[in-house]
Amino acid sequence: MLIPIASGSDVAAVLTDLFVVLLAAKIGDEICRRIGQPGLIGEIVAGALIGPSVLGLVEPGEVLQVFAEVGVVFLLFWVGLETRIGDLRSVGKPAALAGMLGVIFPFAAGLGLGFAIGENTASSVFIASALVATSVGITSAVLMQLGVLDTKASRTILGAAIVDDILARLLLAFATGLSTSKLDVVGLLVTAGLAVAFLTFFALGGTRAMRARPELLHLPKVPDSALLLAVIGCLGLAALANAIGLAAIIGAFLAGLIFSESKDHYPLELEIKPLYSFLSPFFFAVIGMSVDLGSFTDGDTLALLGVTVLLAAATKFAGAWIGALSLGRNEAAFVGLGMIPRGEVGIVVAGIGRSAGVIGDELFAVIVGMSIVTTLITPPLLRRASRRIAVGGDGLEPPTLSV
Amino acid sequence: MLIPIASGSDVAAVLTDLFVVLLAAKIGDEICRRIGQPGLIGEIVAGALIGPSVLGLVEPGEVLQVFAEVGVVFLLFWVGLETRIGDLRSVGKPAALAGMLGVIFPFAAGLGLGFAIGENTASSVFIASALVATSVGITSAVLMQLGVLDTKASRTILGAAIVDDILARLLLAFATGLSTSKLDVVGLLVTAGLAVAFLTFFALGGTRAMRARPELLHLPKVPDSALLLAVIGCLGLAALANAIGLAAIIGAFLAGLIFSESKDHYPLELEIKPLYSFLSPFFFAVIGMSVDLGSFTDGDTLALLGVTVLLAAATKFAGAWIGALSLGRNEAAFVGLGMIPRGEVGIVVAGIGRSAGVIGDELFAVIVGMSIVTTLITPPLLRRASRRIAVGGDGLEPPTLSV
Repeated sequence: MLIPIASGSDVAAVLTDLFVVLLAAKIGDEICRRIGQPGLIGEIVAGALIGPSVLGLVEPGEVLQVFAEVGVVFLLFWVGLETRIGDLRSVGKPAALAGMLGVIFPFAAGLGLGFAIGENTASSVFIASALVATSVGITSAVLMQLGVLDTKASRTILGAAIVDDILARLLLAFATGLSTSKLDVVGLLVTAGLAVAFLTFFALGGTRAMRARPELLHLPKVPDSALLLAVIGCLGLAALANAIGLAAIIGAFLAGLIFSESKDHYPLELEIKPLYSFLSPFFFAVIGMSVDLGSFTDGDTLALLGVTVLLAAATKFAGAWIGALSLGRNEAAFVGLGMIPRGEVGIVVAGIGRSAGVIGDELFAVIVGMSIVTTLITPPLLRRASRRIAVGGDGLEPPTLSV
Repeated sequence: MLIPIASGSDVAAVLTDLFVVLLAAKIGDEICRRIGQPGLIGEIVAGALIGPSVLGLVEPGEVLQVFAEVGVVFLLFWVGLETRIGDLRSVGKPAALAGMLGVIFPFAAGLGLGFAIGENTASSVFIASALVATSVGITSAVLMQLGVLDTKASRTILGAAIVDDILARLLLAFATGLSTSKLDVVGLLVTAGLAVAFLTFFALGGTRAMRARPELLHLPKVPDSALLLAVIGCLGLAALANAIGLAAIIGAFLAGLIFSESKDHYPLELEIKPLYSFLSPFFFAVIGMSVDLGSFTDGDTLALLGVTVLLAAATKFAGAWIGALSLGRNEAAFVGLGMIPRGEVGIVVAGIGRSAGVIGDELFAVIVGMSIVTTLITPPLLRRASRRIAVGGDGLEPPTLSV
């Protein structure tokens, strides 16, 4: 009863990996919650401990990475299910402003940092791009765990993260073009246009269609077909978003927004919950596995890491805070903090830069370190800031927490 | 927001594969149910259509195979959750007898077939081994869809499938040893002993411990921790079973048996359902993808396929039927039919034989074809036979159906 082609030992190895990662993540989760911190910090630290850098129990191979990606896709799908399109539109302006300023400030700071440490233009633009992109996956998970998804500030963060992602993608394409001397301005404009068209079409048309005909979400003869059609829609929009140059999780979030219009008909949230409960720990653990603690043994690298973290956090906070000030000072501070985690995104950008030959080993380690440090410092700060924001904007119960 | 290391296009490709497989499987499911047949037939046929043999939309690569394996692991976990250890023990004798005779008859027939078509001893033993093993994954799914898991006949099938798996593994190890001239009798005995010890320890000790202390299934601070601990236990026992030479799904079934003792405390079945609803279609579709229709263009191969299917079905039916006769004739017929599908198991054995150089391309195609044909013909027969067996042995509601 093995699977075809793969030998028995391959299958056993993968099942063992899944077992070890999930067990370690849940132990980390429990420990963190006992000391009053969001559980995902424990899952990331657990990943670092079992990963190649410390114990070497598990390698983050292709299968674990796909589990991680599908995990964060279901996480954002669930967040989308908890969100109504109207709620997002009501924070459109501060979200757009926070997204834009939260990109411009870190980009400028990254450029300055690159030049200050003596890198050339192509490398400096890459460093700047790596400082830009927010990990909406991390922030969403923290907002869920705090039970504050249903607030203006949280919705502003979600909206800003979409703007952030589009701009960050364009900057990354620009940086890659610079580094290979194949800068394609028309291509960049097409990508930007496609992204906006994709978002507009599905966010407006998709939600309207679902509101009008929720019964479409149902195959007459197949039990659980509402769940499966929703999952199929989620995977389809995630793949499509990725294909046109956006993050897969933006597509998953859009799918969630669309299916949230059928909420009164199908208990999708209850059924999606086990899927992300099972899969999202892989997302956090795989982030932790990317860290290479061995790179931070000399003082210079540590100092550079410290400066980079400070710049990344301060400029992102400042940009998003100014952009969201119209919501009030406490809300703006919450939005600013919420945009700080770079999570997996910084790690990916650093990897692309290294493959392109414009980011050396030290800078790579520093950017990965910055991504993980910003991810670990934010949740406790967000938790404190969440006590000062207005909760329950539309009178709904705050969602139960469970990543 | 891509995953680390893998490039954006890799992720998009995997998400697209998952999307295509799930969509095709659910269309096949719906069509089959509309014509009154179990949905998994449609999922297998859909896999064959989108696979390399016909449309070539999707290759069954490592990620899909792991999804398939985890899917069947959760399926058997759920079946275990629906079963109490006492119910299994009450059918111990007919199950053991059906398992043993259902192995001996096909093995003898396979040996005879091998010699009749002029193969040498090593190859003939391999053909015989490939004819032996039942796919309890397929049968379990059909029993679930028919809503007859809660019957003596179904429990006999589950028990017989465990006996079948142990014997089939030993025969496969024997066949592999013959083909490489490294037959290790002591190793075989150790494997057999380990398998029996593993089953006894967890089936008896595990269920007793869980009955005594169900509250262990709970991390105080982590929401959904009962689900996650159950999933961790399921993956752990699946990996352990595989490591000692049993099928991973036997470990998953054992885990289900153990956690079913905590049923009154946690709604595990409801939470596991979305997991297998999402993942098990990959199991059926990947089986379909293994077929190579191009191999069956000449009459001789087709004839050999026909003979092999007949032998495989008739001998398995006869063995299991005789073994289960003490349950009554209708029940015995149901058990005999339930053991016929070879599913993924025959495919794996054929693959091992081909790698070992004792199975040629034609025989490989024939054994894979036999595995798939026995899998496709059985569900309709089981459906008819299910109308003549006693349902609801212990007064519980039959479980709702949903693969």
